[in-house]
Amino acid sequence: MREKFLAKDYVNNDYKDIVFNRRSYRRFDPSQNISRDEIVEMLDEATITPSACNLQSWHFVVVDNEEARNKVKAVTMPFNYPQLETAPVTIFILGDTHSHKVYREVWTKVYEEGRITKEKLDAIFNSFLPMYEKADRDFLIKDATLDSSMLAMQLLLVARAHGYEANAWAGYNSKDLVATLNLDNERFVPIMAISIGKPGEEPTESTRYDVNSKINFLA
Amino acid sequence: MREKFLAKDYVNNDYKDIVFNRRSYRRFDPSQNISRDEIVEMLDEATITPSACNLQSWHFVVVDNEEARNKVKAVTMPFNYPQLETAPVTIFILGDTHSHKVYREVWTKVYEEGRITKEKLDAIFNSFLPMYEKADRDFLIKDATLDSSMLAMQLLLVARAHGYEANAWAGYNSKDLVATLNLDNERFVPIMAISIGKPGEEPTESTRYDVNSKINFLA
Repeated sequence: MREKFLAKDYVNNDYKDIVFNRRSYRRFDPSQNISRDEIVEMLDEATITPSACNLQSWHFVVVDNEEARNKVKAVTMPFNYPQLETAPVTIFILGDTHSHKVYREVWTKVYEEGRITKEKLDAIFNSFLPMYEKADRDFLIKDATLDSSMLAMQLLLVARAHGYEANAWAGYNSKDLVATLNLDNERFVPIMAISIGKPGEEPTESTRYDVNSKINFLA
Repeated sequence: MREKFLAKDYVNNDYKDIVFNRRSYRRFDPSQNISRDEIVEMLDEATITPSACNLQSWHFVVVDNEEARNKVKAVTMPFNYPQLETAPVTIFILGDTHSHKVYREVWTKVYEEGRITKEKLDAIFNSFLPMYEKADRDFLIKDATLDSSMLAMQLLLVARAHGYEANAWAGYNSKDLVATLNLDNERFVPIMAISIGKPGEEPTESTRYDVNSKINFLA
């Protein structure tokens, strides 16, 4: 899958510009739509993110129409209305605590297609998979949270490679969000929302602590 | 701070190559050192990551010498010895659940230096800060986990911009890790380790699910 991305022409392929000129925008130009094809493309690119044991414990709900926006607005804190209302698309990233349940099936298929050896298949099934099958919910939530947050960062950068700006936010009612998104509350946990579009304002400037205050070297 | 990064010459500034040719390496060339100056530089660049309310709830412990490696090896699962033993540097990323406690002091300083208005300072202190001051530990851990995981993704890419490869891993004894790193167990939570260096083997190939199986559009 990586080859198709490497062959593609991005609007912006300048790593420095993508990373260091990224800012959080809270107002977008609502007249600039993003097609569903391009949304799927961006998510496909973002899923190149690594994940614990390659379980890919993430899931996406795309909000790109007025009716959907109104549904999630009902569980969103008013502070975050600007980005929700003005961005043509807001992608809710959820952690999937059941990702290990589909894993066995998926890797059996990869083995049957001759893409991995029996030894590799056995190693997958006998090493870490039983650990996940026996894990408690807190462990599964933590793993899904790590995977999905890493993916969120990747998506912020992907958006800029596509010529858009973005804002990551989590100001919603976590208890009600998953049901509002028509997903199973037992399986999925809210991670964050990412609003994407063309900018409709100047971005917020921010600062960072001196990095030395954040580092210890272990002797 | 962004200007200094934008002015810099990176070994690799090709976004597509950095993102889509990134692989997980589990063995590095132990003869290729990374200077502490460059480690600090990479962490400085990675902290351009956005965070909830700009609390920057991350902390780093750098393991770059034999004595330190042996200390963490004692709490690491044998499965992860290869990257720990061969990488010249492994950076432990911790979530800082007390980040809001230093926030008041830091922003007062920013205001006193004339960099923000009194209105902006009041908005910071009166809106979300009280929410953090009243939050329970689970909330603070989740926030720190999101911030730190996003930063971890950024660090994996930064490493490639510097011409290195990396591996993110979390196979350690979480209960004992923080004390082993000489940090306060009450304040810091383990997120993941990132080993960085020049490759010492071919990377592991992996696959991703069809992204369409991960997406719902909300009507």
